Amino acid sequence: MSNDSGGDLFSLCRRRGFVWPSFELYGGVAGMYDYGPLGSNMRNNIVEVWRDIYRGREGFIEIDSETVNPREVFKASGHVDEFADLVTYCKGCEAASRADHLVKEFFDNPDVLTPKELDEAFVKFKVKCPECGGDLGPVEEFNLMFKTAIGPGSSRVGYLRPETAQGIFVNYLNLYRYNREKLPLGVIQTGRGYRNEIAPRQGMIRMREFNMMEVELFVDPADKGWIRFPEIENDPITLVPNTGTETVTMTVGEAVEKGIIANKVLAYFVYTTQQFLTRLGIDPKRLRFRQHLRDEMAHYAMDCWDAEVLLSYGWIEITGIADRGCWDLSRHAEFSGTDLTHFKKFDEPKEMEIDKVKAKHKALGPKFKEKAKAIAEIMETKLPSDVRDGKLALDLEDNEIVLDGEFFEVVKVREKVSGERVVPHVIEPSHGLDRIFYSVLEHSFAYDKENDYTVLRLAPEVAPIKAGIFPLMEKDGMDALAMDIYKKVHSPSTEAYYDGSGTIGRRYARMDEVGTPWCITVDYESLDGPLKGTVTIRDRDTAAQKRIPADSVPDILRLLLSGRQFDSL
Amino acid sequence: MSNDSGGDLFSLCRRRGFVWPSFELYGGVAGMYDYGPLGSNMRNNIVEVWRDIYRGREGFIEIDSETVNPREVFKASGHVDEFADLVTYCKGCEAASRADHLVKEFFDNPDVLTPKELDEAFVKFKVKCPECGGDLGPVEEFNLMFKTAIGPGSSRVGYLRPETAQGIFVNYLNLYRYNREKLPLGVIQTGRGYRNEIAPRQGMIRMREFNMMEVELFVDPADKGWIRFPEIENDPITLVPNTGTETVTMTVGEAVEKGIIANKVLAYFVYTTQQFLTRLGIDPKRLRFRQHLRDEMAHYAMDCWDAEVLLSYGWIEITGIADRGCWDLSRHAEFSGTDLTHFKKFDEPKEMEIDKVKAKHKALGPKFKEKAKAIAEIMETKLPSDVRDGKLALDLEDNEIVLDGEFFEVVKVREKVSGERVVPHVIEPSHGLDRIFYSVLEHSFAYDKENDYTVLRLAPEVAPIKAGIFPLMEKDGMDALAMDIYKKVHSPSTEAYYDGSGTIGRRYARMDEVGTPWCITVDYESLDGPLKGTVTIRDRDTAAQKRIPADSVPDILRLLLSGRQFDSL
Repeated sequence: MSNDSGGDLFSLCRRRGFVWPSFELYGGVAGMYDYGPLGSNMRNNIVEVWRDIYRGREGFIEIDSETVNPREVFKASGHVDEFADLVTYCKGCEAASRADHLVKEFFDNPDVLTPKELDEAFVKFKVKCPECGGDLGPVEEFNLMFKTAIGPGSSRVGYLRPETAQGIFVNYLNLYRYNREKLPLGVIQTGRGYRNEIAPRQGMIRMREFNMMEVELFVDPADKGWIRFPEIENDPITLVPNTGTETVTMTVGEAVEKGIIANKVLAYFVYTTQQFLTRLGIDPKRLRFRQHLRDEMAHYAMDCWDAEVLLSYGWIEITGIADRGCWDLSRHAEFSGTDLTHFKKFDEPKEMEIDKVKAKHKALGPKFKEKAKAIAEIMETKLPSDVRDGKLALDLEDNEIVLDGEFFEVVKVREKVSGERVVPHVIEPSHGLDRIFYSVLEHSFAYDKENDYTVLRLAPEVAPIKAGIFPLMEKDGMDALAMDIYKKVHSPSTEAYYDGSGTIGRRYARMDEVGTPWCITVDYESLDGPLKGTVTIRDRDTAAQKRIPADSVPDILRLLLSGRQFDSL
Repeated sequence: MSNDSGGDLFSLCRRRGFVWPSFELYGGVAGMYDYGPLGSNMRNNIVEVWRDIYRGREGFIEIDSETVNPREVFKASGHVDEFADLVTYCKGCEAASRADHLVKEFFDNPDVLTPKELDEAFVKFKVKCPECGGDLGPVEEFNLMFKTAIGPGSSRVGYLRPETAQGIFVNYLNLYRYNREKLPLGVIQTGRGYRNEIAPRQGMIRMREFNMMEVELFVDPADKGWIRFPEIENDPITLVPNTGTETVTMTVGEAVEKGIIANKVLAYFVYTTQQFLTRLGIDPKRLRFRQHLRDEMAHYAMDCWDAEVLLSYGWIEITGIADRGCWDLSRHAEFSGTDLTHFKKFDEPKEMEIDKVKAKHKALGPKFKEKAKAIAEIMETKLPSDVRDGKLALDLEDNEIVLDGEFFEVVKVREKVSGERVVPHVIEPSHGLDRIFYSVLEHSFAYDKENDYTVLRLAPEVAPIKAGIFPLMEKDGMDALAMDIYKKVHSPSTEAYYDGSGTIGRRYARMDEVGTPWCITVDYESLDGPLKGTVTIRDRDTAAQKRIPADSVPDILRLLLSGRQFDSL
């Protein structure tokens, strides 16, 4: 039984309705795929496992925000300025190529090269257009967000979101209030992300329109533990720390103690990702967690780990788990001029030295006359963080007044305070749903060359069809009984498939090929004789069969789906 | 108990995390809303009911296709040319307005006016800019699709899809093969649709980015019955036929017999929509099905019915159910040059007069010499429908040859044929998910003015939280038992909410306000005495309470969710 993935898997995906290249009717569009009936079911099943872990076990909340966002959001997030690849256009055929990809055989790390260095490399290494062999034009930046306009006329610039995370950050105040102003606050979102790739070529690994499952966990920066950490601290995890290139296996607890993973909450969610991916059917031997190198890490990330799986494409990142510090909320606070903090109440009031805004009455009086007192009062309700570029804005009788340092000062005072404002830190497990979907298929794909026989060994909770239901032949009432069983079993969460045509072996093979864990067959013995009222149930992975009462099929499938072993039936 | 919907409901939606206006941090964007934790759950629950009907009961298949589509798709669908509203820009403040909305008090049906008629109406009725009172500029067309570019450089024009339906039509061949080339073929899709409204103002009724649930059922044009029609033909339905403006109630069977609804399959899905909406909690007395007027109907629609509900905005369409005939597949066949038909096999071969492509050997010989024979053979495998603009294209040894009428003719011949090719007709129930979501909220909203008390009377399967779980006080072990029950009950499909703070009355009120059907309370009697091991369960709609064993809570909730009455516990 060899494991021959790659081309065959992709042809299976198309033939059996897992995934179809989009818009083939109109010549196709690179980097776009549609999910067929089986793929769509299986993808939904993956999302449900993710929900079970994050909403079920962890009690996080889920939201759904818009995919078209105004420019301000991505100006604050940094995507308008930073989310770009380098492109070169052929002077002959005008084909666009990713500049760094063209020189990857000459450099270890071509994506750090500047446009100028790439231009020079094209000359030095005689690099030509991969499409037509023509000369390459100058390298330039290409922003990877899809751009559009919101509304007509002098409209607002909008972008399709490159990640679902920003929809959570911009709703921080709503979410914080929903959580009754408490931390930790865990929020999840699944949906589309968009990346206008220059020349996508790696199938479902690099899609222009893709699906994400993101988790943003807001925590107190002074408390990076996790309540369930003790439950998993002795469990093993396979890491590639950025101090070397070696793979090491150790317990989660050790990884934190030795300072390899920055803190317990991050380590907990690295481990949760391992649980999640292996539960889906990712082979643990082809899974590792690789720490970002210092120069690879986003400048704001305090620590970042990629879940990588070994595929026919090599080791591919399918999930990133990062401690993003206070970056996201600080940026949105700055760009929106809004306080996005958490008020951390002390157990009892503390005497502390704090910064306060203090009015300069001597300057206010002469300038604002009878309004000076009111202005001073409003001023002293402001926080030092409200001072921006040395100026303080306040509303007086619906007019905005902007005051400079002549009128106020920030002073240190000792006061009894009941708590302090902190910017929450963000722990982010961010999952590429399509990549996970594809990886599960590759790791489940088992092809027996000798017999030219394919089995997708999908975990039952992931399998798109849970049961094939067959009459041995479509006659003598076997079809009616099989259809009756189908109707009792079939629902969107327990998809069943009725099939009455072809040999029974061929029907088993069709179900094995799409990963259906069990098949039920109604035969002549179901209708008459000592076994009347029973049907056979067949296990995909062993091809073993047992007889069970026809009317217990729904219950037995429910038991099997909740983890009961076939052998123990 | 009065039913006071409108402003209060919207404030409840925001305050309790159903729906939030998007991007408020950056000033907001009209016509965009985010779903908060409760809204997101409730919306998912609505989708699951829809899936239960269409995938579960009807056995349809579900797909998920891309939201960014290349221009070709919407050229074929007609959206590039037809999907537009008329806009006028203020000469003063440059604000954009929908031209027809500005004259709605002067015309019964302002959306049929031409730009010229609207310009004249502005003058005649002295219509000014609604924002600043300035003069209005000339009326022009504004295409409502969000436009973008796919890829860099000489990129491909793309649009955000205005409906999910096209993703099904362009996958017809894949879907038809998946269904083993049989009709009927029912396909469903849920996901985002986009409409770049000129100036959206009606809350969730008119969103720029919205959610749809669409069903495309491909049927044999000669068979517009439905297998389950007899089950519902005697059930009543409330219709507003386009022969008048009267509301009439009759059975589904009568509506078809009298020719009011065009055919049985369309009538079945009009009725299915009634089942679906009332199951969600839409008030049957505020629901009607209105037939499109002849001049309102899309030119291709053979019959079309809108499900309308009475809201604070008036009667609003929330679902359309149309017989679209062969329009969609014919257009995509024409624009893509691909055969999108169904091969309808006869029970036994029939002698029929059919059209055939016949080669003109006399013309082919002199021109194509030794290749003439091969060309003639390929030619005669072609169908008359392959002839486009009088020309026939074929591939010979990888070269495309285009032949005009000099070289072939289409002739009528009598032949024994085993079947015929037909373009399937499409029955389309198309649901606006956000409008349905909002309508369910309005119809469930019950406000008792006297006591200033709100209850959302949501159907249990729709309610975002299924059970509130409370300790009477957070001490003496009541909190531990309540948390233990919470953990056993809570899952993404049976969302529970633990709440330990405030008076118990306040906690019931908070749950009533968001439609939670049941609350479980752990009190002192749960811990000790004759009632040890029991908890109370409270019914939202009657406020009745019973005691049940603590360890039966998960089972009892499961029973209640599957329809058991609270009284019968």
